Amino acid sequence: MAIEFDIDPHVADIARRTTAFVREHVLPAEEECRGDVHAGPEPLRRGLQEAARAAGVFAPHVPVRWGGLGLDLRGQAVVFEAAGYSLLGPLALNCAAPDEGNTHLLDAVATEEQRARFLAPLAAGETRSCFAMTEPSPGAGSDPRALATRAERIPGGWRIDGRKWFISGADGAAFTICMARTGGEPGDPGGATMFLIDAGNPGMKVVRNIGTLDRALFGGHSELALDACEVADDAVLGEVHRGFEYAQVRLGPARLTHCMRWLGVARRAQDIALDRAAGRRAFGGRLAELGMVQQQLADSEIDIETSRAVLWRACWELDQGRPGAQLTSIAKTFVSEAVGRVVDRAVQVCGALGISEDIPLASLYREVRPFRIYDGPSETHRWAIAKRAVRAARERGPGEPAREAAPTRGGGA
Amino acid sequence: MAIEFDIDPHVADIARRTTAFVREHVLPAEEECRGDVHAGPEPLRRGLQEAARAAGVFAPHVPVRWGGLGLDLRGQAVVFEAAGYSLLGPLALNCAAPDEGNTHLLDAVATEEQRARFLAPLAAGETRSCFAMTEPSPGAGSDPRALATRAERIPGGWRIDGRKWFISGADGAAFTICMARTGGEPGDPGGATMFLIDAGNPGMKVVRNIGTLDRALFGGHSELALDACEVADDAVLGEVHRGFEYAQVRLGPARLTHCMRWLGVARRAQDIALDRAAGRRAFGGRLAELGMVQQQLADSEIDIETSRAVLWRACWELDQGRPGAQLTSIAKTFVSEAVGRVVDRAVQVCGALGISEDIPLASLYREVRPFRIYDGPSETHRWAIAKRAVRAARERGPGEPAREAAPTRGGGA
Amino acid sequence: MAIEFDIDPHVADIARRTTAFVREHVLPAEEECRGDVHAGPEPLRRGLQEAARAAGVFAPHVPVRWGGLGLDLRGQAVVFEAAGYSLLGPLALNCAAPDEGNTHLLDAVATEEQRARFLAPLAAGETRSCFAMTEPSPGAGSDPRALATRAERIPGGWRIDGRKWFISGADGAAFTICMARTGGEPGDPGGATMFLIDAGNPGMKVVRNIGTLDRALFGGHSELALDACEVADDAVLGEVHRGFEYAQVRLGPARLTHCMRWLGVARRAQDIALDRAAGRRAFGGRLAELGMVQQQLADSEIDIETSRAVLWRACWELDQGRPGAQLTSIAKTFVSEAVGRVVDRAVQVCGALGISEDIPLASLYREVRPFRIYDGPSETHRWAIAKRAVRAARERGPGEPAREAAPTRGGGA
Amino acid sequence: MAIEFDIDPHVADIARRTTAFVREHVLPAEEECRGDVHAGPEPLRRGLQEAARAAGVFAPHVPVRWGGLGLDLRGQAVVFEAAGYSLLGPLALNCAAPDEGNTHLLDAVATEEQRARFLAPLAAGETRSCFAMTEPSPGAGSDPRALATRAERIPGGWRIDGRKWFISGADGAAFTICMARTGGEPGDPGGATMFLIDAGNPGMKVVRNIGTLDRALFGGHSELALDACEVADDAVLGEVHRGFEYAQVRLGPARLTHCMRWLGVARRAQDIALDRAAGRRAFGGRLAELGMVQQQLADSEIDIETSRAVLWRACWELDQGRPGAQLTSIAKTFVSEAVGRVVDRAVQVCGALGISEDIPLASLYREVRPFRIYDGPSETHRWAIAKRAVRAARERGPGEPAREAAPTRGGGA
Repeated sequence: MAIEFDIDPHVADIARRTTAFVREHVLPAEEECRGDVHAGPEPLRRGLQEAARAAGVFAPHVPVRWGGLGLDLRGQAVVFEAAGYSLLGPLALNCAAPDEGNTHLLDAVATEEQRARFLAPLAAGETRSCFAMTEPSPGAGSDPRALATRAERIPGGWRIDGRKWFISGADGAAFTICMARTGGEPGDPGGATMFLIDAGNPGMKVVRNIGTLDRALFGGHSELALDACEVADDAVLGEVHRGFEYAQVRLGPARLTHCMRWLGVARRAQDIALDRAAGRRAFGGRLAELGMVQQQLADSEIDIETSRAVLWRACWELDQGRPGAQLTSIAKTFVSEAVGRVVDRAVQVCGALGISEDIPLASLYREVRPFRIYDGPSETHRWAIAKRAVRAARERGPGEPAREAAPTRGGGA
Repeated sequence: MAIEFDIDPHVADIARRTTAFVREHVLPAEEECRGDVHAGPEPLRRGLQEAARAAGVFAPHVPVRWGGLGLDLRGQAVVFEAAGYSLLGPLALNCAAPDEGNTHLLDAVATEEQRARFLAPLAAGETRSCFAMTEPSPGAGSDPRALATRAERIPGGWRIDGRKWFISGADGAAFTICMARTGGEPGDPGGATMFLIDAGNPGMKVVRNIGTLDRALFGGHSELALDACEVADDAVLGEVHRGFEYAQVRLGPARLTHCMRWLGVARRAQDIALDRAAGRRAFGGRLAELGMVQQQLADSEIDIETSRAVLWRACWELDQGRPGAQLTSIAKTFVSEAVGRVVDRAVQVCGALGISEDIPLASLYREVRPFRIYDGPSETHRWAIAKRAVRAARERGPGEPAREAAPTRGGGA
Repeated sequence: MAIEFDIDPHVADIARRTTAFVREHVLPAEEECRGDVHAGPEPLRRGLQEAARAAGVFAPHVPVRWGGLGLDLRGQAVVFEAAGYSLLGPLALNCAAPDEGNTHLLDAVATEEQRARFLAPLAAGETRSCFAMTEPSPGAGSDPRALATRAERIPGGWRIDGRKWFISGADGAAFTICMARTGGEPGDPGGATMFLIDAGNPGMKVVRNIGTLDRALFGGHSELALDACEVADDAVLGEVHRGFEYAQVRLGPARLTHCMRWLGVARRAQDIALDRAAGRRAFGGRLAELGMVQQQLADSEIDIETSRAVLWRACWELDQGRPGAQLTSIAKTFVSEAVGRVVDRAVQVCGALGISEDIPLASLYREVRPFRIYDGPSETHRWAIAKRAVRAARERGPGEPAREAAPTRGGGA
Repeated sequence: MAIEFDIDPHVADIARRTTAFVREHVLPAEEECRGDVHAGPEPLRRGLQEAARAAGVFAPHVPVRWGGLGLDLRGQAVVFEAAGYSLLGPLALNCAAPDEGNTHLLDAVATEEQRARFLAPLAAGETRSCFAMTEPSPGAGSDPRALATRAERIPGGWRIDGRKWFISGADGAAFTICMARTGGEPGDPGGATMFLIDAGNPGMKVVRNIGTLDRALFGGHSELALDACEVADDAVLGEVHRGFEYAQVRLGPARLTHCMRWLGVARRAQDIALDRAAGRRAFGGRLAELGMVQQQLADSEIDIETSRAVLWRACWELDQGRPGAQLTSIAKTFVSEAVGRVVDRAVQVCGALGISEDIPLASLYREVRPFRIYDGPSETHRWAIAKRAVRAARERGPGEPAREAAPTRGGGA
């Protein structure tokens, strides 16, 4: 099998329809709400998803048995990028965070009963969900092992106590996948368990919705209090004590799907900048003929193409069932930073207009900053990337000409 | 056909053997001459190529009919990277610049007779060649249209007059592919023709070998004088007036093969840095545990993996016979700059040792700087990238949500 | 006289009092309105300015004869930085844009009568003002010569027609200093005149307030329509046709005072990051002990100190009455970009908290992005910097070892 | 006293004469030896110093009582920059490393007898010296506390054993200031002592001269072996056990004088780039009219002016006798990196010519890379800068609006 970048015609077809759908249905909706859906307007969501279903582009990542289009990660990469062209595109296709990642997690780990109860309606867009891992300092943050929320055994179930914050989509979610410590102490690398908690559970409350720089995450980011929150035994997702492991199951692909959607944002920003540069005159010529503007446009093209290439490669790795942690970290770090640069340059090319709300750039600018922090800040990923590279170097022994001097299996370091 | 990163087993096998060959035969030779082959020591070249032939890795890019391994660009990408791990690896495999690009050009454009006379011995490593396009200011440089060397019709042939410089490998080359103006004036976009000039031609002289920062180009870089240099009609390569067009035929792949070899250099530098970081202690811990060192190591891993991904993508594009100018420019610009950063960081990680000649980093540091200038400086490529992007934006018309919001054919913008 | 960085005790005293005043009075007010004063809440402004007057720190830049503290630019640099620590500090001291620049302009150019009528109440904080130069594309923007607003001679005065936008503080301003073309065509380097237009003039209307990324400019940014706006002869500020020249009188110092205030913002962001790093634990240690965090903190210290040094130097240059365009451009470009980096790093160091509205960083992040566009985008300044440097190089002639190899008068290139 | 950037007329005069001297005497000498003086050609040195003396610019930093011009650091900043315009300028003025730093150290710490014997001839250019601190890994490097060379008490003196490397100027030095451990173990923060060792001492040998990327340090960099090297009691410089402390006395100013000389290098490179841009035509216009070239030229102007400003500030701090460690680290880190960027851009602007030895840029490029490693690599300085900033933040306590919100004494953080 040789290196190949062609896109499956079936995937290409969905991508084309997604592009048309975004243009006709989603961009107008985005303009209307100015990309701000932190309040979680249900009618908007329902309407968009209805239209996506009609366009045949709904739930591209969801397995066919749950009513989706069943694309693998490479297929998702193409379609999610098309959807990400609008901040609301992924919501319309029901492939936005955190629901998209939760769908994957439930499909991989849940019991058949849990799937019927939680996954089926989620995949169909009838409900929303959230994933509650992050805690206020000094709890779980960029270092998940700091997990402090605790679940104690009670007869027939568990009692959970703790505080979560920055829980995206919590306000309005039908259920929460909550990470709690069933063993060990904060700082220990094991001992975490995932629990499925219904929205109605009296022990769990949305304390507040946190104001943030970004606005386009449906339902916003909330702080949750778990006070003697009791759940039955069947609330355990997967097995007790394997929560950190499952988090990786969720996070690997989730990092890549983030990148796919962000790449759409970058393309949107760059298109706005290109239009502006092609149309506007300054200093006796077209903006697009000024060297410093060209440099910015070119750098953004470079950022976009390299992002897509490394992202596709990481997707392929995971699609092969290989441990793709290194490439996933590399893709997440590079793409999140590249997207930030692209949007920043687009703002600069558009000048005053770029910082006005007359065009969506200012909104995109606010939106992309958190990418470098979500799902592991760049620093945490760089730390992990370096550690893996050093470990590999140690294994081969000093002086040796290193790993096979070229990849012979396509895989990363 | 889906996106695929697996490597053909045949290619993987050649790459593995190349890696072993470089370790056993080439690295010791490189150490001996300290990576300096500007003087063009023939016995060294002959010996290395003999060994490569014995190892079954000679001429991976050369079509099978001319005695090579017949790899396409994607296959070359894998093998050339392995070869590039040593500065002399490509020379050993007979896939170094400028011979490798000339082989490709002759195969694509030459008459059968010219192929027998020039290509066959070149492909076999019996001769070397050079490509004479660049001229001292104000002649052809980053802007090839400034071409000033002129060929005038004489009975039965042409008389060429002009000055060339930075002609790599000219000293000792059996023949020169020389670009001269057969029509128009300097600045005109057409009117160039390529000529095959034998080394013995009394009208062409190597005036001097230019001292440069780099040292690893076999034969160095020379200045040539063409004074009433007469050639027969059969010295014309391809057709009269199509020289600029052929230059593109040569340059597209040549830019990518440069990137492949450079990527090997980057891997070498990074391996040295990893070894050093894994082994050395400072500030009460291992260097590899210091955050700022980790950041440098991680950034270099990111640079290497993204470089490889975008490079492979550009190779695929050309292998499909598609116009890959945009992706080729992107790959050339990104990879040449990424490789420079990787080597620079490796020097920094190794400290005083890194700038000493005790290890090869100082030599690699000198070697990679010109990459950002050779084969079109970064600025020229960025200008071209921006122009193509703006043209595409204009074609779709302002306001429209842009090109298909995701690639559906795998190709670049 | 030798190079000297000591601060005049009188200035140091004002700076100290400003710091205390900001802490006690301004930061609480800023928190209350979350740094958003685009709506122009008059009671807030009045209250803050009252308090500043009581603290003896009101109007540090205003000449003593108009009731201010009469500091030169170097004195302002120290005090404005202290004021800029809060987004509302400059408003409190009546040294915010655009009033501060207009005060300077009126003092330099206005007739005694105009001063009494416009400058006196402005300096006292009784009124606000605006400066109407920028126009929607293709009018005056980064290239002021594109000025399209036109003033025609009418008996006893002028009739002005045009469109202005991004006019900061226009909503609520008692008067507008409006730039209009009294000669030539858009693109011509001369022919502009400044007019003083009262808020009540029926020919000038605030069409709308533009939504923007930033929020802390009192009164926001508005779009103005001038439709047959008639003014008397005494509305001309300075002389007819000298508008572009006066714009430079205003812009030189205005760029530097922007930098001073921004530097305060950078210090604020860095202090937040330092506090966070000093207090928070992660990965088994304090955040402040992680190398990648240290790198960000150090880079911000470097950005702040170099910014201050080059800014002070440019101030000194203008204080000497020298043409400081080159150093002013350099300071504006460097400081605006450095401040952006400092705030960006602070956000990253603070992680999720950094993008929440729980702390002011997200707000500072939005606020500083426009700095690279206001008062000449970085690209325009770089173009001007390069042009001046090349001109100087040409004047000395090629080959010569250049300008005096070291500055001997303290001045810039 | 107010912030002041004027240059003392006396200093300005020396700087002017230095500029003229460099142009007339030093640049020709540099060209002749191609900036390579690692072999330490004594006649060249003698000749240049003779000429400098004649021009009245010899030894600007040396106290008047030792025959120098007695400039303080601010005066040195101006004059050394002028000298640094040529790689050999500082050698000519006898203010090159390491002699310049040793002069300062001896003047500050040595006994009167030691001064007569070592300082007097050194200041007069009759001898050269070296400073032996750095050791091969795992000895003293970026972490000086790792010092492993040991001095044991013997009757009437000391016996020193150890290995030193990268000892600049050792080959040909009349004496060595050698740092050895008289107490504690490698890793301990104290216990070091400085010894003055005559070149003739049989226990100290130059084992080899290390090949390095740079070439312009007179005498090159050597490896020294100390084998039972015996010295008398009067060889101790200053007091026993205070070696680390004295190293700081030497290093503070030495870092700044490095920056001064490097700034001259940056100016040289930028002047070459400006000349090239002003003179060369490409793409139908002058190079200097291409936006991407302008951007590079402007960025270099910005780098040079900000470097000079922050450097002067650090000099002033030390001239006041204040602890200037923070600003010294900031200046060293910023200037060494800025100079590297300036030279790199100049190479890029000059294209192929830039990497040829036809002009001095390739040589400057090799020369400046080590600046980021010498005298503390950037990483060590950033670590120290962050630590000091965090400590300051902790002292003021969290939540407080930080250090005085503006400097009121001119000093750094």
